[in-house]
Amino acid sequence: MLLAEIISVGTELLFGEIVDSNAAFLARELGARGVTLHRKTVLGDNLERLTGAIQTALGRADLLILGGGLGPTDDDLTREAIAAALNETPQEDPALLSWLEGLYTARGRVMPAINRKQTWLIPSAEALPNPVGTAPGWFVRTAAGKLIVALPGPPREMQRMWAQQVLPRLPLPSRALLHTTVHTQGIGESNVAELLAELTKSANPSVATYARKTGVDVRVAASADSEAAARALLDPVLTQVRGLLGRWTWGEDADTLAGALGRALQGRTLSVIEAGSAGLLSTLLADEPGFLDAAVTQDHRRLITLGLTPVTLQGAGLVSEQAARELAAGAREHLGAEVGLAVVVQAGGEQAGQAYAALHADDLQKSLGLNWPGDPAQIRERAAVAALALAYRTLRPGGWDA
Amino acid sequence: MLLAEIISVGTELLFGEIVDSNAAFLARELGARGVTLHRKTVLGDNLERLTGAIQTALGRADLLILGGGLGPTDDDLTREAIAAALNETPQEDPALLSWLEGLYTARGRVMPAINRKQTWLIPSAEALPNPVGTAPGWFVRTAAGKLIVALPGPPREMQRMWAQQVLPRLPLPSRALLHTTVHTQGIGESNVAELLAELTKSANPSVATYARKTGVDVRVAASADSEAAARALLDPVLTQVRGLLGRWTWGEDADTLAGALGRALQGRTLSVIEAGSAGLLSTLLADEPGFLDAAVTQDHRRLITLGLTPVTLQGAGLVSEQAARELAAGAREHLGAEVGLAVVVQAGGEQAGQAYAALHADDLQKSLGLNWPGDPAQIRERAAVAALALAYRTLRPGGWDA
Repeated sequence: MLLAEIISVGTELLFGEIVDSNAAFLARELGARGVTLHRKTVLGDNLERLTGAIQTALGRADLLILGGGLGPTDDDLTREAIAAALNETPQEDPALLSWLEGLYTARGRVMPAINRKQTWLIPSAEALPNPVGTAPGWFVRTAAGKLIVALPGPPREMQRMWAQQVLPRLPLPSRALLHTTVHTQGIGESNVAELLAELTKSANPSVATYARKTGVDVRVAASADSEAAARALLDPVLTQVRGLLGRWTWGEDADTLAGALGRALQGRTLSVIEAGSAGLLSTLLADEPGFLDAAVTQDHRRLITLGLTPVTLQGAGLVSEQAARELAAGAREHLGAEVGLAVVVQAGGEQAGQAYAALHADDLQKSLGLNWPGDPAQIRERAAVAALALAYRTLRPGGWDA
Repeated sequence: MLLAEIISVGTELLFGEIVDSNAAFLARELGARGVTLHRKTVLGDNLERLTGAIQTALGRADLLILGGGLGPTDDDLTREAIAAALNETPQEDPALLSWLEGLYTARGRVMPAINRKQTWLIPSAEALPNPVGTAPGWFVRTAAGKLIVALPGPPREMQRMWAQQVLPRLPLPSRALLHTTVHTQGIGESNVAELLAELTKSANPSVATYARKTGVDVRVAASADSEAAARALLDPVLTQVRGLLGRWTWGEDADTLAGALGRALQGRTLSVIEAGSAGLLSTLLADEPGFLDAAVTQDHRRLITLGLTPVTLQGAGLVSEQAARELAAGAREHLGAEVGLAVVVQAGGEQAGQAYAALHADDLQKSLGLNWPGDPAQIRERAAVAALALAYRTLRPGGWDA
């Protein structure tokens, strides 16, 4: 059994100015791979305390993961602390130095001298390449057979290096864990739980529900000594779950709701008008084939040029089902697409939480309202997700009631 | 000087299923009151490890704050661990027992037996009333003169008890801590560090740099016996920092870059065309007064209707400075605003990281290019932030070179 500890480094983390999402990510990753995590610690940028904490942790755990403190400045001390804890001396690594200087040269700049310490290594450390930043990580094998992993603090750099550089180097337990997550939309968590009934009581395979921003996820997981045995446990239960939730399902695992909509478009083009959802629908759709153009505006005159009628604006108002329908038609006409999608949202004020989405295609029109309070960011996100789900469910093979 | 540590207790926290917002809250509270925090630790529901961690922390710190583990179930172990660490024996407290039984009686229920341990005290502990839950806290004065505070995990209960019960009991230093964070854009962390030079080496006031998504932040902090004395330390250094970085500065503390641009608009309207940045600019600008309309599209024909010339498209291409300039002019003309802002971004593929932003107003035109690799989300975010910064810096009083 591999015992792990995590140390997050940074005064801004210690003082609560930044939430430590890295440690939560790493904890989930370790748990999913059968590594036992006993402790997470947050320390400020202090060489003595950090060195002591590394030594203490190495006395307890087999694997120590350090996040942060790999930047170029004087208060980035993770490299110094590992070196001190292991009584080794850091030296510039010629290969890292030429890589880092090259990064700057390619941009027509000269590498500042303070960045040189990002090219340090100690004898027991191997460099972990960072393809999206200037801070390489360290993978350290100590004389006592312990492992130390040092990763940079920015979550994107850390997560990418974790997956690409660290995982392949770790001696992970051989037990096979398989899991599939089924994504639903338009059904509440308690209703999902009622439908799944006894299935959620089993321990292996386990069936668990999670309320996500995109709807309720159902995760089915099985573990066994071999992948084949885990698969044999998982598959029958997964088939049952798929059958029970099919009506509300839009995808599995890494699928996204926007991706599901992109596929359901089947070659048609889609344009969008967003009034009050702050461009979130555009952000979700940006990479989908078929997405053509979006207008993001709450300005009444601009919206009238996009298809909203003054009659509706003065009568039902901007946040109304009729306005959403007119703007969905307007998205087709004024933004040149075969399918138009519109969302109108009241994100603040007295009616906060009221939103409507509408879809307009040649042969199809569908609209819906939702009303659930929250802070503006929540309301906008729910509205954007509801609009995607409306479009997916209307356009999917078999249509709304498939 | 009061030295503090925080221990958060709970397997769900350790495994990253819940983010530890309590520790961040407490860290900010301690910092604001001049208490020095050296360490935050997260432990699972394990009596032996928790007891050991309490003893270790009491060997280092004057004040130990424990969050969580005060519920009624078998895996709520904070009371047991404090008792074990101090070698004291818990006993039911008659006053707490009658209070807790009364809570249940008032709801027409009988208190379950498992709740009895919530009425425990040890000789060195004083109960901290919980007006909104069933878990009283503990305020412990050890024989060695150390303080232990145990608070329940639900943030609403914890925060209220912290303010009402804990703060009045703490021997708080009269020391005042003041800090100001200066936000910059368009200059790297190493260059900021070089400009600040010796300033970053001072301990009080301290000057620290942080790389954020919106650029480099510089935090200047000073502590002293009185607020006036802390102010007298802080102000001259803050003035120096402001002077050295003025050219790149867009705000301080709670300011946002979009808010700075909103103010710099001075009543003018702003429209935006985003090609490749996935609506991020619209999202950032959504709540700013003056923001009128955004078009989010990468479609060549749509972009030509918005002001991009076919000549530029076929020559320099969409991701070019000329295209950004034409679209900035197009944002004014086709989206009806006084100021036009455009960003063109190559988020993936071989030229990933290439981006241009341009601003067009009556009397002003400005554009810039940037090129820094990363994953698509990073590239888009940097481009959107760079576009905001370009617009802010061009429109601010004094203009680009102010």
